[in-house]
Amino acid sequence: MSDRHYTLFEKQQQARGIDLEAVKKKLQKLQVETPSWGFGDSGTRFKVFQQEGIPRDPFEKLEDAAQVHKHTGSSPAVAIHIPWDKVDNYKDLKTHAEGLGVSIGAVNPNLFQDDDYKFGSLTNTDPAIRRKALDHLLECIDIARKVDSNVLSLWFADGTNYPGQADFRKRKNWMLEGLKSMYDALDDSMRMLIEYKFFEPGFYHTDFADWGMAFNAANKLGSQAEVLVDTGHHPQATNIEHIVAYLLDEQKLGGFHFNSRKYADDDLIVGAHDPYEVFLILQQIVQAEEDPDPAVRKNAENIAYMLDQCHNLEPKIPAMIRSIENVQTMYAKACLVNLEELRTAQEKQDVLGAERAIRSAFEADVTPLLEAFREETGASVKPMDAYYSSGYGEKILSRGKGGASW
Amino acid sequence: MSDRHYTLFEKQQQARGIDLEAVKKKLQKLQVETPSWGFGDSGTRFKVFQQEGIPRDPFEKLEDAAQVHKHTGSSPAVAIHIPWDKVDNYKDLKTHAEGLGVSIGAVNPNLFQDDDYKFGSLTNTDPAIRRKALDHLLECIDIARKVDSNVLSLWFADGTNYPGQADFRKRKNWMLEGLKSMYDALDDSMRMLIEYKFFEPGFYHTDFADWGMAFNAANKLGSQAEVLVDTGHHPQATNIEHIVAYLLDEQKLGGFHFNSRKYADDDLIVGAHDPYEVFLILQQIVQAEEDPDPAVRKNAENIAYMLDQCHNLEPKIPAMIRSIENVQTMYAKACLVNLEELRTAQEKQDVLGAERAIRSAFEADVTPLLEAFREETGASVKPMDAYYSSGYGEKILSRGKGGASW
Amino acid sequence: MSDRHYTLFEKQQQARGIDLEAVKKKLQKLQVETPSWGFGDSGTRFKVFQQEGIPRDPFEKLEDAAQVHKHTGSSPAVAIHIPWDKVDNYKDLKTHAEGLGVSIGAVNPNLFQDDDYKFGSLTNTDPAIRRKALDHLLECIDIARKVDSNVLSLWFADGTNYPGQADFRKRKNWMLEGLKSMYDALDDSMRMLIEYKFFEPGFYHTDFADWGMAFNAANKLGSQAEVLVDTGHHPQATNIEHIVAYLLDEQKLGGFHFNSRKYADDDLIVGAHDPYEVFLILQQIVQAEEDPDPAVRKNAENIAYMLDQCHNLEPKIPAMIRSIENVQTMYAKACLVNLEELRTAQEKQDVLGAERAIRSAFEADVTPLLEAFREETGASVKPMDAYYSSGYGEKILSRGKGGASW
Amino acid sequence: MSDRHYTLFEKQQQARGIDLEAVKKKLQKLQVETPSWGFGDSGTRFKVFQQEGIPRDPFEKLEDAAQVHKHTGSSPAVAIHIPWDKVDNYKDLKTHAEGLGVSIGAVNPNLFQDDDYKFGSLTNTDPAIRRKALDHLLECIDIARKVDSNVLSLWFADGTNYPGQADFRKRKNWMLEGLKSMYDALDDSMRMLIEYKFFEPGFYHTDFADWGMAFNAANKLGSQAEVLVDTGHHPQATNIEHIVAYLLDEQKLGGFHFNSRKYADDDLIVGAHDPYEVFLILQQIVQAEEDPDPAVRKNAENIAYMLDQCHNLEPKIPAMIRSIENVQTMYAKACLVNLEELRTAQEKQDVLGAERAIRSAFEADVTPLLEAFREETGASVKPMDAYYSSGYGEKILSRGKGGASW
Repeated sequence: MSDRHYTLFEKQQQARGIDLEAVKKKLQKLQVETPSWGFGDSGTRFKVFQQEGIPRDPFEKLEDAAQVHKHTGSSPAVAIHIPWDKVDNYKDLKTHAEGLGVSIGAVNPNLFQDDDYKFGSLTNTDPAIRRKALDHLLECIDIARKVDSNVLSLWFADGTNYPGQADFRKRKNWMLEGLKSMYDALDDSMRMLIEYKFFEPGFYHTDFADWGMAFNAANKLGSQAEVLVDTGHHPQATNIEHIVAYLLDEQKLGGFHFNSRKYADDDLIVGAHDPYEVFLILQQIVQAEEDPDPAVRKNAENIAYMLDQCHNLEPKIPAMIRSIENVQTMYAKACLVNLEELRTAQEKQDVLGAERAIRSAFEADVTPLLEAFREETGASVKPMDAYYSSGYGEKILSRGKGGASW
Repeated sequence: MSDRHYTLFEKQQQARGIDLEAVKKKLQKLQVETPSWGFGDSGTRFKVFQQEGIPRDPFEKLEDAAQVHKHTGSSPAVAIHIPWDKVDNYKDLKTHAEGLGVSIGAVNPNLFQDDDYKFGSLTNTDPAIRRKALDHLLECIDIARKVDSNVLSLWFADGTNYPGQADFRKRKNWMLEGLKSMYDALDDSMRMLIEYKFFEPGFYHTDFADWGMAFNAANKLGSQAEVLVDTGHHPQATNIEHIVAYLLDEQKLGGFHFNSRKYADDDLIVGAHDPYEVFLILQQIVQAEEDPDPAVRKNAENIAYMLDQCHNLEPKIPAMIRSIENVQTMYAKACLVNLEELRTAQEKQDVLGAERAIRSAFEADVTPLLEAFREETGASVKPMDAYYSSGYGEKILSRGKGGASW
Repeated sequence: MSDRHYTLFEKQQQARGIDLEAVKKKLQKLQVETPSWGFGDSGTRFKVFQQEGIPRDPFEKLEDAAQVHKHTGSSPAVAIHIPWDKVDNYKDLKTHAEGLGVSIGAVNPNLFQDDDYKFGSLTNTDPAIRRKALDHLLECIDIARKVDSNVLSLWFADGTNYPGQADFRKRKNWMLEGLKSMYDALDDSMRMLIEYKFFEPGFYHTDFADWGMAFNAANKLGSQAEVLVDTGHHPQATNIEHIVAYLLDEQKLGGFHFNSRKYADDDLIVGAHDPYEVFLILQQIVQAEEDPDPAVRKNAENIAYMLDQCHNLEPKIPAMIRSIENVQTMYAKACLVNLEELRTAQEKQDVLGAERAIRSAFEADVTPLLEAFREETGASVKPMDAYYSSGYGEKILSRGKGGASW
Repeated sequence: MSDRHYTLFEKQQQARGIDLEAVKKKLQKLQVETPSWGFGDSGTRFKVFQQEGIPRDPFEKLEDAAQVHKHTGSSPAVAIHIPWDKVDNYKDLKTHAEGLGVSIGAVNPNLFQDDDYKFGSLTNTDPAIRRKALDHLLECIDIARKVDSNVLSLWFADGTNYPGQADFRKRKNWMLEGLKSMYDALDDSMRMLIEYKFFEPGFYHTDFADWGMAFNAANKLGSQAEVLVDTGHHPQATNIEHIVAYLLDEQKLGGFHFNSRKYADDDLIVGAHDPYEVFLILQQIVQAEEDPDPAVRKNAENIAYMLDQCHNLEPKIPAMIRSIENVQTMYAKACLVNLEELRTAQEKQDVLGAERAIRSAFEADVTPLLEAFREETGASVKPMDAYYSSGYGEKILSRGKGGASW
């Protein structure tokens, strides 16, 4: 039946002016990194419910991550977090990854779990702590070199809880000073992505509170510094696709941390609560991929897509597979927008026509397309079912409880 | 100088029609429980920064709490959390408290840190777990008897993370069923206060998501069940004072968990981020205390005031002192509203006049009044300074690091 | 091709355990009222952009509304607003509607555009204004009788802008007093639906601020009083489907005002900004329609579905057609959830399985089903295209500019 | 009694290290423009309640505004809105203002009430409309020259309601193109302030949605372009004082539109709902006024303070007086922070000490200071009382109803 579905779907899309072969080529380029830490135990401040079978070290995390890529065909790299993924020999880690068919992706420094960082890392009033934080950033550049990664992904937990607690402007300048020193140490091939977050763990202010602050810093640093958009780090109702389009226009969109949220930074399965938002974000990117301006196209093609999720209740590997599927699904739908139809309606200020051009693509069921795509590329046609029947989930139970966690 | 201040302030208030002696009497009745857990280590999901000198057991928590009461004169009871404050002999705990000049306040069951409660406690699909949860609630009633407490304070972490994860209506009915069994076990003198929360740890739904759900349950249970308002558990911009007035009118306002928040359930020092909101809440209560309807007055006089805060960065005891001071300050200001002036302006629909009646009370500096009140009642005139110079903070450092925590 | 689509879709759904004939029967029962005022000019406080061809009186509004029903087959009734739709002879209006193939639906009193209501209607401090407001409500019952409507749909703009401006509790009691008088005047067949709203036009408090306040009033009034859920009237991130399930469980869900919002009460085309939310709401209803409890089923079957939208930029009739299509689409998807599969996963606490049961239904493209349904019921297979090619839009341009507006 | 109050207050502040004479000098420099349109009738989309005595033309608006300055001594300029304040001869308007003791402040173009701007002004797809919008901006520069104003205050209502409706990036570039043409036409002494707004009237996106977008445009334009902060234009919970500090550090803080909001852009009396927020914003400015960096100081001293409020329910002139009083009050309190104490606590990472340094200033009752200040500067000691007893409010009733409105 699947073949008939695909044939019918293809005709349907041809009639709409969409060439599915071109869409498949675009799908091929969509690669979404999984986060090593997403395979470990996680929870809320109230409780971490430990799961059985959690990887006990970075090597096992890579093994689990490789399962996600094996079945989805779209997650060939794994982001690491230092010191959570600290190992004696990073070449071994790299080799291990390669043996599993994956590579090591973005390197994420951690500047929030050392007691010294209680009142800030690069923004601390104490110059010795600022120096320590910088040293860690430089160490991460070094690790990136060793694992052949060219992306440094920077999230700062720096912030405060009370009015008056700190001097906003001094911290702003200390932050920039530290980042400049880090920037100078980057190899030419490397990029540093600056993440922003509305709140948490700071409950009064966050030093990079919004895209504007991250963008301004990236501008001051230079072309190797870009902005990282975590889809869970905005105030309620923020139009994220607008920010994404804005950054693309400035050629400063470095990458994404995908996840889903309803309330705060909930870090749930991407697309689980508002799939249309994910679609609208990706549709801006698809549009930029076809932009007449080569600079915009170049930015769109160099986006680092990453998941950043915590699966507190559900099993980790299937949750990651599901997340990758969701991104693939929304991206495939975004590719079905007839951009010519959209542009024409926009130019005529035909509100309903323009909205229909967008929405009709979202309403499509892209299952036949994704199944065909996965079959052709050697991934599992139905990734989740394939994983469940692979026996991998049972095999790792022998790891027991008490694996890696934050 | 302080005396002159008080004299001047008194005249000023007399001129506004306010009798400070009456205000002092009202202040005397304002008693705000401190939470035993607020003296332990706490943090965010990212990191718990351990402090030195944290109490190592429930007895030491009471000792710290007694300091707060000693200096502020307004926090003579301490809420406990089971099993965090589980002891072999509750009579000993009670006696220890009494020896310190305090008593044990609300008993808080904990239904969120046992692995069994991962998918719900009273709302779990598994009847054995629902039974276990109920047994814990009944155990807490028993503990309340032993420590002579008449308040059971119920917060349920029950909720879900994903659409479809659970059946809202089944859970609603299981919850009510469990609460009914608990209600039937209450002594006549006991009250159970039902707390609600917009989100966290559930990131899709919370079984008691708002005051309406808690209120409806309390109505079905009977007169010993009431609603508990945690000031940090609402959607952004919620008019909490309106809810408070509404519950007073229904005689269903059981108590408060005070704290401050800017973003989510931040659990910071009450009044630290929006003092006017605390004032407006307390002003509704002051107004109810003077209501012609005795039922409304009775509710207003029986409110259980409690703090529920986490001092992640700041030292615990001074933070609690500060919190009590803030509540006293806002309550004292609320008592300065000339209710006759307010009513007259409201009746004339004089918007600016009515607002001025409220606001002019808030603008007063009530320091002279509070200092006089504390002096007269034997507390410390300047609680924070007195605590700092008492040497207690240094003394407890000998406890070292690694005290009690969630 | 459409036939092959339907055949394939039917097989696909059969394989999932879904019987499309049963879904079609359910679709037949889904009737969504359009609002007469939604065909008039509307705007923001900044500007009303007048459109050409706007109906000039209630009769023309019905004519436009009839177009929506003609093409969608699912909007056979039109809600009216008094005094906007005041006419000399309501029997004439009723007859006119019937001639157009529609009927008159909910009667909506207006208590916010008379100067007297500046400081409240039923909640005004002035008893004469409260009486005037009540008289208008009674007048609306009378109109409902004349037009054979049995639904009174009550939205109160009552609220305040400043702390202190009014006495919350007095207003609460005046409101209830007024509603009781209205309730007593209802015919046995009539229902009054009480709407709530988080804010606007009141910017400090709203007398019915949330579902809890409307629900409590409805409880006090009796079985003919129920709650009306406007999907745009909640705080950000509110889980509306939870509230809907809750009200169904209490048999107090009276009806809906559908619309879409991203920020405030934006009153845009339902489903345009978060289609998944609409699906999740309707899925709760579909579930209730199949509930073992006949009281829950009865409530689910008696819901009054209505649109309440303002098409400030887009043409009115196509916008309404689009809105009805969106509700149909999301309801059809909601009917595709395999409830047995969902229940089984929920009972096993299989989070990912339960979520998949919900989500896989949403991902379906229900176009073949809706087209088949519309063909079989005599509506237009493609409502929007049919409307555009009908020439009606051009015909009404002769009405010129300056038609009805708020 | 007032003298004794002042004397006591002065001693109290001296003891805290604060010199009240210096504070008075700072108060003298605080000048807050009133908006001409704030004296006209306004309302919500639901209803404009007309008041009696509303000014009928720009000349009468200036007369009313002059009353505010007369009594408060702090609002010597009046912002105008074109075309609402269009007159045949702007020199006459200027002369009229001068005769009243005030001057004309910021010139505000209006690009949202002409039918042509339905789908955007500078961002419209139609080049003729973009040109028309630019011409209006250039006209406003010309008017500014005529009335001797050097501030152009730019709020764009440009935005969209639906996904797909418009191309974000094209609009971004058209906007910048238009602003560049305007910038080139500015006199050297002129500044253009770019306002941003989270939403409304656009309900899907706003072209200047946040400070980051306004800031980036200002950066590209040059030193005469700066950012305008309207306190009601942010997502819930935004830390506005952080943004203010950030812009000061970048020397790009152009000015404020003060008002208060609880929910959306409610445009109520500044400080009426969260006075502490106003205080914290002004405290950042006071801190910048004392900054070692002359560039930061210069920015702090050149801020254009303006009200932008709509008094829908309350009388206009007293509401403006109240607003100016509130700003004065919060600014005076902000001046009472002992900056040395604050810095020391911040450097020691003494969270409670730093917070106390801020908060103790807020708790002060600055009435004696403000009364002394007003007496010394020739304003009314009690502005509101003085206005009420002046008879002006009664005098203007002869204007009747139906004055100026949006």
